[in-house]
Amino acid sequence: MLKLIDPWGSALPEDYAKIIADFGLEVFNPRDFPDPNRLMRRGVVFAGRDLKRISEAIRGRKKFYALSGIMPTSERIHFGNKMVIENLAYFQKHGAKTVICVADLEAAAVRGIPLAEARKRALDFHIPAYIALGLDPRKTLLYFQSDNRDVMKIAFEAAQKITYNEFRATYGSTEPGRIMSAVTQIGDILYPQFKESMPGIIPVGIDQEPHIRLTRDFVARTHASHKFTQISSLYHKYTPSLDGGLKMSKSLPEGSIDLPEDPKTACAKIKRALTGGRDTLEEHRRLGAVVEKDMVFELLKQHLVEDDKELQEIYDDYKGGKMTSGELKQIACDKITEFLKDFEEKTAQARELAKAKELHFII
Amino acid sequence: MLKLIDPWGSALPEDYAKIIADFGLEVFNPRDFPDPNRLMRRGVVFAGRDLKRISEAIRGRKKFYALSGIMPTSERIHFGNKMVIENLAYFQKHGAKTVICVADLEAAAVRGIPLAEARKRALDFHIPAYIALGLDPRKTLLYFQSDNRDVMKIAFEAAQKITYNEFRATYGSTEPGRIMSAVTQIGDILYPQFKESMPGIIPVGIDQEPHIRLTRDFVARTHASHKFTQISSLYHKYTPSLDGGLKMSKSLPEGSIDLPEDPKTACAKIKRALTGGRDTLEEHRRLGAVVEKDMVFELLKQHLVEDDKELQEIYDDYKGGKMTSGELKQIACDKITEFLKDFEEKTAQARELAKAKELHFII
Repeated sequence: MLKLIDPWGSALPEDYAKIIADFGLEVFNPRDFPDPNRLMRRGVVFAGRDLKRISEAIRGRKKFYALSGIMPTSERIHFGNKMVIENLAYFQKHGAKTVICVADLEAAAVRGIPLAEARKRALDFHIPAYIALGLDPRKTLLYFQSDNRDVMKIAFEAAQKITYNEFRATYGSTEPGRIMSAVTQIGDILYPQFKESMPGIIPVGIDQEPHIRLTRDFVARTHASHKFTQISSLYHKYTPSLDGGLKMSKSLPEGSIDLPEDPKTACAKIKRALTGGRDTLEEHRRLGAVVEKDMVFELLKQHLVEDDKELQEIYDDYKGGKMTSGELKQIACDKITEFLKDFEEKTAQARELAKAKELHFII
Repeated sequence: MLKLIDPWGSALPEDYAKIIADFGLEVFNPRDFPDPNRLMRRGVVFAGRDLKRISEAIRGRKKFYALSGIMPTSERIHFGNKMVIENLAYFQKHGAKTVICVADLEAAAVRGIPLAEARKRALDFHIPAYIALGLDPRKTLLYFQSDNRDVMKIAFEAAQKITYNEFRATYGSTEPGRIMSAVTQIGDILYPQFKESMPGIIPVGIDQEPHIRLTRDFVARTHASHKFTQISSLYHKYTPSLDGGLKMSKSLPEGSIDLPEDPKTACAKIKRALTGGRDTLEEHRRLGAVVEKDMVFELLKQHLVEDDKELQEIYDDYKGGKMTSGELKQIACDKITEFLKDFEEKTAQARELAKAKELHFII
């Protein structure tokens, strides 16, 4: 079933079909959504919850929201953040009230980053980066946790309605700081409904599923008091580490490309990536590449080639042995260089607008 | 040692000396404070923590604060609240920046009282009642939890710094709602120091000691980041139930007088109270009353007789058998009638000022 929506396959070590079964998720079907984006068309977005509520809101031009957050701990983001923003931008384009929460309270509490510093980082880097990745500030409601009293009102109620045992089951840990962060996150997720109930979609990596489930459990038991509409969620697969690991991660910088990153460094990493090329050129020409095991193709598919036809041609040439893994890497290097330069330019432009106070958000 | 500061003794079932020893509290000595109030002079205020910091601030005319809260769950308070306010008013009179927090978030979360309703109750009843009991609004900083973002900033940090095991040791319970309330209360207690470190005193009933201890534990480990000054606390004994129980309580309305209360009802309760009178008049005249077991005398001592000389005369007459318990009850009935009428009148006046928006708080 996963194959159906992932025409170029995937050799990622994690079995996403198993995740769908274990967590009781819905399989994401790109045909349910108008003009699905690259991630949706290619099975990178692979599952969700209560997706029909959102597709119907889009088709019926009804109010709904799409929400994500910024954790301003460093001035870097990664491809996982990029996917969230691209999905957010998709829903924004299709009518969603778009909400971005800057988790400054959490950054202060968990990482000891002063609130003023968190605010500065968000304005200097994260928000410009999100705009560079396609978010339209004029259609985005941006808020800082530390400014938002309504979030804490919901968080307080969540703390009352969710039991100690549920927290333990969800997170393993029941340390107070974890609980405080979790209920605040629930407050963030539901905040757009504080004054008016409406469907909302939260695009996340699959590792964020516990937050979604806990929020949904809370919503399910608050009908009388608040009448929140149950939230929907959208899950994307990880961008794998270039060495073939499940996901890019700070703990393995050689396999991971951050945004921003120096294009030369990025190319060097790509050149050392795990590919599906054969041991000898002769063998490669004869058997073709094992595209499913190729981390460079996965990067092209997830992030660097927008046009489906172009990707199909690369796939065919590489699979057929006509293109070598060296040639594939060169394509990826050229494309990531272009992407990283474009990202930096657009981020810098948005930063200038932010400094000139010419970024116009909804509030 | 307790006797020294409690000249009229006490037959309360709880051994307050044991509490002092068990909790490692300081014995409160009224001679350390200028013009001690009725509760201080009579050993009703019996202990504290870091009291020297406050007495020195008073003598040296240095900045300090005194803080308490309003839990606007019902439009009634009890004698325990009255004692807190009287102590707060004492410190206010002696130079304390006085802070009252309306715990509307907690009332909403724990008791399901809508925030608007909590606000209304606080303005209609609690704040006027506190003014009736001696608080000067012009010298009081009043805030609502749901309006105060800085409280949540401190609460977030407290949640990070206090462990699960500490919560369990402090409260027995580790339910998320309890944790959320506890860290928010820590935020409230320290909020007056958010911008400027200064000593602060929190007058409470002895049952609130766990909150104080947890707050002090948190302060002790935040020197680097915030430099809060360690808080001081002041503990008063309970007003005993009229039937001789440890404290007045909703669960035994016959032994408990609320504020407000119909004076006739209050007198009827006093008439049925446990006294130290003897079985027969002859015996009473001969042996005198057992004042230490007399709940009516305790009420007079704690709340109804301001003048020490007057109280001493009542004590002597009753102890000497000259005054019967019936006569003592009549005195208490007269005095509580006067007090309750005065309380209602003053509360009504302050309520009118509040409605006309003529109550001028610091903010």
